[in-house]
Amino acid sequence: MAERGFDAYIIPSGDAHASEYVADFWRARQWISGFSGSAGLVVVTPNEAGLWTDGRYFIQAERELAGSEIKLFKMQEPDVPTYQAFLAEKIPQNGSVAFDGHTITTTSFKTLKDKLREKGAIFSHGEDLIGQIWRDRPPLPREKAFEHAVCFAGKNRAEKLADVRGQMSEKKIAAYLVTALDSVAWLLNLRGRDIAGLPVVYAFVFITQNEARLFIDAEKIEGLHLPEYEIHKYDALSQFLKNHSLKNSASKKIFFNPHTTSVLLSESIEAEFRGEFKPSEEIIPRLKAVKTPHELAQIKNAFIKEGVAMTKTLFWLENAMAGKVAAGALVTEGDVVRVLQKFRAEQADYLCDSFDTVSAYGANAAEAHYTCGETGATLRPEGFLLLDTGGQYLDGTTDTTRTIPLGALTDDMRRDYTLVLKGHIALARAVFLKGTTGTQLDILARLPLWQTGQNYSHGTGHGIGFCLSVHEGPHNISTHHNAVALEPGMLLTNEPALYKAGRYGIRTENVLCVRAKRAMNPDDMCRERRFAPKPDSFLDFLEFEILTICPIDTRAILSELLNETEREWLETYNKTVRETLSPYLSDAERAWMQNLGLRAKRAVGTGGMCRRRRILSKP
Amino acid sequence: MAERGFDAYIIPSGDAHASEYVADFWRARQWISGFSGSAGLVVVTPNEAGLWTDGRYFIQAERELAGSEIKLFKMQEPDVPTYQAFLAEKIPQNGSVAFDGHTITTTSFKTLKDKLREKGAIFSHGEDLIGQIWRDRPPLPREKAFEHAVCFAGKNRAEKLADVRGQMSEKKIAAYLVTALDSVAWLLNLRGRDIAGLPVVYAFVFITQNEARLFIDAEKIEGLHLPEYEIHKYDALSQFLKNHSLKNSASKKIFFNPHTTSVLLSESIEAEFRGEFKPSEEIIPRLKAVKTPHELAQIKNAFIKEGVAMTKTLFWLENAMAGKVAAGALVTEGDVVRVLQKFRAEQADYLCDSFDTVSAYGANAAEAHYTCGETGATLRPEGFLLLDTGGQYLDGTTDTTRTIPLGALTDDMRRDYTLVLKGHIALARAVFLKGTTGTQLDILARLPLWQTGQNYSHGTGHGIGFCLSVHEGPHNISTHHNAVALEPGMLLTNEPALYKAGRYGIRTENVLCVRAKRAMNPDDMCRERRFAPKPDSFLDFLEFEILTICPIDTRAILSELLNETEREWLETYNKTVRETLSPYLSDAERAWMQNLGLRAKRAVGTGGMCRRRRILSKP
Repeated sequence: MAERGFDAYIIPSGDAHASEYVADFWRARQWISGFSGSAGLVVVTPNEAGLWTDGRYFIQAERELAGSEIKLFKMQEPDVPTYQAFLAEKIPQNGSVAFDGHTITTTSFKTLKDKLREKGAIFSHGEDLIGQIWRDRPPLPREKAFEHAVCFAGKNRAEKLADVRGQMSEKKIAAYLVTALDSVAWLLNLRGRDIAGLPVVYAFVFITQNEARLFIDAEKIEGLHLPEYEIHKYDALSQFLKNHSLKNSASKKIFFNPHTTSVLLSESIEAEFRGEFKPSEEIIPRLKAVKTPHELAQIKNAFIKEGVAMTKTLFWLENAMAGKVAAGALVTEGDVVRVLQKFRAEQADYLCDSFDTVSAYGANAAEAHYTCGETGATLRPEGFLLLDTGGQYLDGTTDTTRTIPLGALTDDMRRDYTLVLKGHIALARAVFLKGTTGTQLDILARLPLWQTGQNYSHGTGHGIGFCLSVHEGPHNISTHHNAVALEPGMLLTNEPALYKAGRYGIRTENVLCVRAKRAMNPDDMCRERRFAPKPDSFLDFLEFEILTICPIDTRAILSELLNETEREWLETYNKTVRETLSPYLSDAERAWMQNLGLRAKRAVGTGGMCRRRRILSKP
Repeated sequence: MAERGFDAYIIPSGDAHASEYVADFWRARQWISGFSGSAGLVVVTPNEAGLWTDGRYFIQAERELAGSEIKLFKMQEPDVPTYQAFLAEKIPQNGSVAFDGHTITTTSFKTLKDKLREKGAIFSHGEDLIGQIWRDRPPLPREKAFEHAVCFAGKNRAEKLADVRGQMSEKKIAAYLVTALDSVAWLLNLRGRDIAGLPVVYAFVFITQNEARLFIDAEKIEGLHLPEYEIHKYDALSQFLKNHSLKNSASKKIFFNPHTTSVLLSESIEAEFRGEFKPSEEIIPRLKAVKTPHELAQIKNAFIKEGVAMTKTLFWLENAMAGKVAAGALVTEGDVVRVLQKFRAEQADYLCDSFDTVSAYGANAAEAHYTCGETGATLRPEGFLLLDTGGQYLDGTTDTTRTIPLGALTDDMRRDYTLVLKGHIALARAVFLKGTTGTQLDILARLPLWQTGQNYSHGTGHGIGFCLSVHEGPHNISTHHNAVALEPGMLLTNEPALYKAGRYGIRTENVLCVRAKRAMNPDDMCRERRFAPKPDSFLDFLEFEILTICPIDTRAILSELLNETEREWLETYNKTVRETLSPYLSDAERAWMQNLGLRAKRAVGTGGMCRRRRILSKP
């Protein structure tokens, strides 16, 4: 920095595609700070250094930064400056601020520029200082890409390209730069192993009505047949965009999403994002979010396989706890993760976990993104184990959370488990008019908690990819405004939760699929139609289909808090799970499932609860 | 038009303040078209004329336009052009479009300009053509303004002016042009009789830290003492703004709300609205929306008076129906309005109705804004009468809807009445985190209808003024996104509904006030606080207090559709109504109320419904 005359250097978490998870090559922020969370940003000045991260990671960041000179800035806490405000205070007038232009998005750079306008800051994004001092930096991943076969994807590459071009001409977009890795993977029907948990390859795509260019390291696609695309080097994109812009006076008409496009690329286009349409309306993310019937059929199969792996794990856990605890041996959080991975690996077309499993016992579960590492805490026959986990299969990406009672529970635990479940059921049962957004539905999941003065501070649901990212947009369910209306074929998680710091955490998560509302009693429908002033007021309704097939534990329920409708929903759901999974379980597992079903029925009925409690508290 | 060379002339509904209801002077659109609805716009070209209005008024407009040459354009229907699109098609290139600049807001003009940009349209807004041909045009109202005494308003004029100036310096607003009539009235503690239903006077205010200018006809404020304000003529504002802008280079810093400020005024400022802050954050509407404890105490009193008038009317109605029908005489929709006005006029500090009462029997109630005129339909001893009505009192503005069973009901009627009531109760019982918007709450009122494939196509709730407009912002409860978070002291109506064209309409409406959530069981609260990771996640909750005091009829309820919580809510509400109103009723009315209460209790209990039904069907 001194050599270059930089007054500040910014080291964000990102790769050149704004990926949520990144390859080791891009972990510059982790390398310099030691902080390993998925979200964080380091600022270095000649005399100071700071790390900014959000509420999910305060505890972890404090631990990992301990002993370093790097100060922790807790984002969104009162009186904690943003990193832009910090820079505005620390750099001299007309000071220089540098960063690697690959790692900051166009949107972030715009915010940064605005905040440092009064300081007259000079920006330099051509140099990667970390790259020059990080001697044992891992190379960019060289894993081979592989086909996501049409039997899974449903449409071939040419069809997908034609779909995108069709929308481009509809939306009057002459050229489209695709930067998000899951968008590239979806478009090309390619998958890869470049990022743990996210089966993508590092690549960009550039499309016009006549051209389709793929920017990727040639060795990654050796042996693959991609006649629709002209292949360029991965790092040739910036120069290509510069030449393209020079040749085309209409260069401003290149659409790129400023949230996923690095400032290096957008500055090569020599045009700011013009807002011709909203980033949330980007063509591929929307096409990708609305699953086709073919994709849905695949995905449902993946959820059955995941349900088998989960149920086998839950069966193993109950037996292991009973056997090992009796024998004085230990079961750890890490054991559960390994057993789950083993059962998952036995399933067809399994690739990898879709994210680091949260296996969190007791108070650990109050950290929403806890990871246990190799061993983690020892499980004892009381309280809850929270298990939030998912798999990547060629036929689908899963994400399930269950909160498992290991023995005696307190009244607070039972009450909170039941309140979270009430919210989960209310959202699962929602019926809503076309045009409704996730923002409008969010309160259904929260209301039982709000009515007891409680809340969870994260979203209620996120989209989910098809053998792609476990978090995908543009839709979601959250208290924050999101104008994207839910459409049939969109997937969403349903994951209300409750965290009691130092005590326990509860979350129950299924994946839902939006579909057209199935008709009620046909007689009723006829009557309604006959008198409806506007047909669409009465017929255009949506509802959710539940994709996740994994039993919801009824032993922790405080029966008097559920009403009849909720009890029926739960019995029907667990019955469906039993019927769907039974053919894939061993005799012992099946018997345990059947028994679990009967127990569930007893447990939710009045009176059954007490019997169950006694059994649990003396396991 | 031919003399002036105009290719089109636009005649909107508005006055110079974008008021929802206007003085007769401003009813140019009604005069030229005959259409008397509150919302509509006429476009005249040399060969054609059209009226644009919304779904509330399609039936009425068809009736009132019949026989004229004016074509009805049903807004938001498929393939119906907007009036701007109509103009873009009909006028020649560089054609001239004229209108009275008082009557089109800055926002509307901006849209119009944008849509006609490609046509190179030339706009002329200096001439009121209607004024030149409308010979018996009513004069601008000359009613005197009167004080809204501090015993009602709580703060005097000087205090309110200081509050506004305080916020102006906080928000860095040098000058503030106040154009909405209810804002002017609130600020000045003045009321008037210029508009039916809305007790305001035609006036503008202009404020800086040193100046406070009131633009009003001098005769309106004869005898009033307004030392804080320099008085100007009502029609001197446009010239004043021009001079002010010339003198002040910082003229762009005049804040005005483009939604309520006519293009005549905004063009005088010679600056477009700069979006320094959002119109929804305008200072006075927000101050006005959040009622002070003093105002709330007043308003609660007004709602008791309104409840007395309503209950006396309901008692009269039941007796009149029984007596007159037996004697072969008639009771009409109009009779109910007159009786209600009589009982309201007996209350202290009553000014006028707050809008035209909707007294709609049977199928008439399926029109959400039906008005019966002098007589209207005859009531028969079956089906529903929908009564949506409100009063202006010096201590408050009310708005109540009740759906009253007059005799035998069909199963559909009972089911729909109960579903609407379930939505009403769900919203009334809501508990929500600070920061929650009406958009997030809306689904609570709709869900019982949505779950049976039904909907109502208007909003769920609107703000309400204090002896001012019965509809006020900036908050509301609606499926449409509104970023304004609900705050303690804001009032909102709760009015889910259901309309079956040709059959019946149902609406149940109370006014709610947002307040801090009252503590639950103190023991519970302690426990929560001790373990709360972030105090604000657990304590910053809001809820609603119900202001409307008027019995909700239980005779139409389909008992099996209500759950225990809903039954309890209803019993508690009606008990509160009985206890609050009893002291103000005659012996006979009180006895009827008590009896109504007992009946209610029986009716909602299992079994009671059948007995009640029999009684009703043979009155």
